[in-house]
Amino acid sequence: MSDVRRGSLSVVGLGPGALEHLTARAREVIAEASVIIGYKTYLRLVADLLKGKRVLESPMRQELARCAEATRLALVGERVVLVSSGDAGIYGMAGPLLEMLFHAGWQPDAGIRFEVVPGVTALSACAALVGAPLTHDFCAISLSDLLTPWPQIEKRLEAAASADFVTALYNPRSGRRTWQIERAQEIFLRHRSPATPVGLVTAACREHQAISLTTLAHMDVTTINMQTTVLIGNHRTFTKHGLMVTPRGYADKYNLQDHLQAESDPDASPPS
Amino acid sequence: MSDVRRGSLSVVGLGPGALEHLTARAREVIAEASVIIGYKTYLRLVADLLKGKRVLESPMRQELARCAEATRLALVGERVVLVSSGDAGIYGMAGPLLEMLFHAGWQPDAGIRFEVVPGVTALSACAALVGAPLTHDFCAISLSDLLTPWPQIEKRLEAAASADFVTALYNPRSGRRTWQIERAQEIFLRHRSPATPVGLVTAACREHQAISLTTLAHMDVTTINMQTTVLIGNHRTFTKHGLMVTPRGYADKYNLQDHLQAESDPDASPPS
Repeated sequence: MSDVRRGSLSVVGLGPGALEHLTARAREVIAEASVIIGYKTYLRLVADLLKGKRVLESPMRQELARCAEATRLALVGERVVLVSSGDAGIYGMAGPLLEMLFHAGWQPDAGIRFEVVPGVTALSACAALVGAPLTHDFCAISLSDLLTPWPQIEKRLEAAASADFVTALYNPRSGRRTWQIERAQEIFLRHRSPATPVGLVTAACREHQAISLTTLAHMDVTTINMQTTVLIGNHRTFTKHGLMVTPRGYADKYNLQDHLQAESDPDASPPS
Repeated sequence: MSDVRRGSLSVVGLGPGALEHLTARAREVIAEASVIIGYKTYLRLVADLLKGKRVLESPMRQELARCAEATRLALVGERVVLVSSGDAGIYGMAGPLLEMLFHAGWQPDAGIRFEVVPGVTALSACAALVGAPLTHDFCAISLSDLLTPWPQIEKRLEAAASADFVTALYNPRSGRRTWQIERAQEIFLRHRSPATPVGLVTAACREHQAISLTTLAHMDVTTINMQTTVLIGNHRTFTKHGLMVTPRGYADKYNLQDHLQAESDPDASPPS
């Protein structure tokens, strides 16, 4: 690595959907890149930012090939951006990319500059679309057993259900993996009321976005696919006017009416 | 609500730190607002965006007063933005604000337009700063027992520890609440190796940001305060060259070396 130009490698979370939820830092890093690498569907969402750049599109399930290509190009001095949807660190490309960099003998103090640029994760985007389900302790669990043994996933489902975590299920159901979400539903029904609110958000912030609120007992698993995030409420989560809210506990301790009827907050500064 | 102008109420996550991680949508909503309400420390981080606007600063612990003020102003036709640090939906203001709106008799189809604008949550920002700790199933648990009974928090700590979730602890320690983080450490030590990596990120993306990697056994709780997020690895999380990584499992199934030595990905499109 001594005789090459100093490349850089940034793994960038694009946020959900297209450009609306992109951060300023993500935009800046993409603008400064010499090469952009990513899954083609995600690259198309940000096509406007890629004009005039070298772009390496890759199909699904080529995560390691993408990481290796990004590493090779950065090692020869390119300013490489690897894009991830949502946040690059939450079930994202930051992990396999770092493993690949370590494997290639990289050290932070010499050679490639490395940066993870965080983005708006699917969890936040989906929560915003259904109301405020994640205002208390929560878990994220992927139902994909391609890389994780199912008994470990099931243990986590049991723990999340029994300790009353609001729970987000990622990768809940694909064409071939259909029973895992039904098993998750059974496990939660053993610990929570059948009326527990469930939010289903598919393709958040994209053209074919679909949102539905249902309950643990009535959740129709056939409407769920790999682009769906399943949000299961805790024992206090409620729905009202088509929105799903998990109380943080303020209303137990304080009187909302007192606040609403109060004069303007005396601690607030005057209008500037 | 029939004889008032149609106001709007947006609760906006600013992301960590200042403007760098703000999304395009958050910036747009702030630009269109007639009134901005928030905790003064957060408002100062985005002072550049607030010039010429009516700004209502409020001190800490005035969450409900802020929600009530935002609701009152929106009901008389103002375009109100309530700001939250990080993401507005994750332990953020979206929840209490919706509770206040419902209490005020609001319905989505009439009256105030309501929007949650998601932001980069502390979880994503802190993870990005230490490497890639959140690439597998994780939990977020707040150690604040002001609104939640401690036995419930302890039950969640037990569940998270025993089911091998990567775990982010929010509000871990304040001037007065000092024993909770020690109790959490004890619980995790009963289920995980003393050598389990722990990342401590204080004031992520702000001027006095501090990052340290330690282990479950050696974690120095006196360095932890209310601005710290504690990231506890799962049984496979490792540290290398000052970074913390939770493997997703690719390296168990595939050979990283094969990928690194391969020619350029044949599925990638040619440079454009």
